[in-house]
Amino acid sequence: MKMSELSRESGVAVATIKYYLREGLLHEGLRTSATQAQYDASHLARLGLIRALLGTGNLSVAATRNVLAELDHPAESMHDILGTVTEQLMPATDEGLDLTRAEALVRSLGWWFDPDHRDQLRPLAAALAAMDSAGFELSDRILIGYGRAMHKIAEGEVRRVPDDSPEATVRYVALGVVLVEPLLLALRRLAHIDASASRFGAKNLRLPDPADRSPG
Amino acid sequence: MKMSELSRESGVAVATIKYYLREGLLHEGLRTSATQAQYDASHLARLGLIRALLGTGNLSVAATRNVLAELDHPAESMHDILGTVTEQLMPATDEGLDLTRAEALVRSLGWWFDPDHRDQLRPLAAALAAMDSAGFELSDRILIGYGRAMHKIAEGEVRRVPDDSPEATVRYVALGVVLVEPLLLALRRLAHIDASASRFGAKNLRLPDPADRSPG
Repeated sequence: MKMSELSRESGVAVATIKYYLREGLLHEGLRTSATQAQYDASHLARLGLIRALLGTGNLSVAATRNVLAELDHPAESMHDILGTVTEQLMPATDEGLDLTRAEALVRSLGWWFDPDHRDQLRPLAAALAAMDSAGFELSDRILIGYGRAMHKIAEGEVRRVPDDSPEATVRYVALGVVLVEPLLLALRRLAHIDASASRFGAKNLRLPDPADRSPG
Repeated sequence: MKMSELSRESGVAVATIKYYLREGLLHEGLRTSATQAQYDASHLARLGLIRALLGTGNLSVAATRNVLAELDHPAESMHDILGTVTEQLMPATDEGLDLTRAEALVRSLGWWFDPDHRDQLRPLAAALAAMDSAGFELSDRILIGYGRAMHKIAEGEVRRVPDDSPEATVRYVALGVVLVEPLLLALRRLAHIDASASRFGAKNLRLPDPADRSPG
């Protein structure tokens, strides 16, 4: 298809597609004349992924390029693809962070991690440091409890990662990491309301529909 | 103590304390002359809470005032205090959100919620809408699984809420909601790495210290 059709099919403006070509995010089409090229389904799929990474994933153009590079020169294992994608999705953290406590927590949980990528401990170290400086203490037992709960969630998610094509994998992982975060936090807050109603008893306790309430 | 001592003890600048007094966040001291007043431990405690809400909790002055009003005119139940605090901590969401699907999910989970506060469904509705518009589909079974996992976490958290003083409760809830969120997300990402190493096998799989790895 021509560029105009690619734009119509994908819903991405021609100027934006040209920008992606210049930035090396989208591969060139098959040149048919000095001013025209043919695009195919691979361009359509790639455009969908680029939109997912830049838009929903909120990645920079450089980070998106790093993720796409995994697809063009696939690493030898799916694990490495996942590692690259999630590393690009990592929130920015303070330079001066001490990673010792985060590393100790991951070790007590018995989790594998790559000692060559200690940077992946940074978000955890930042979260622990923020609690520290607010004087909000959590015991190791509680931290490990949180870790186990999140591992159960992560296990299910990794089990559901499609491994039929690297493109599908990257899209699933990038969207899954980013989109499920607000879902989990929203569910936690609504669960607090339910748990609080159980513990403290709600004044004017009214169930939306008692028949709908499952036991426990 | 005088204002200068209150400032030293709390680490909050005098100009900032005066601002909190003007905004009605901090209660007046006992006036001893036209220009001087005496402050006590209640002011110190309140200052700590104000810093927690404005700083860590990232609340607006107006939202902080709403939370503090609960302390000054305590509602009849702890559940209502929790409700007010968490409502003020709710992230902003789109006006036009459809809450139907979020409500249906909370009903299938069997969770209590107050039909007069349907706004509390908004963050969940926003998360579901974002997945929708990115074409990232999760089955009801998976959504309910996420809900159950977060409920287990929330139950433990609500069980640990101190109920000895409303001030301690509010501080714990406000800090706990806000500070634990990045902790959970950071743990989830590290758990992905471990789960991915198990499913796909890491190239150059190296454990930091095999002796430390717990079984399973």
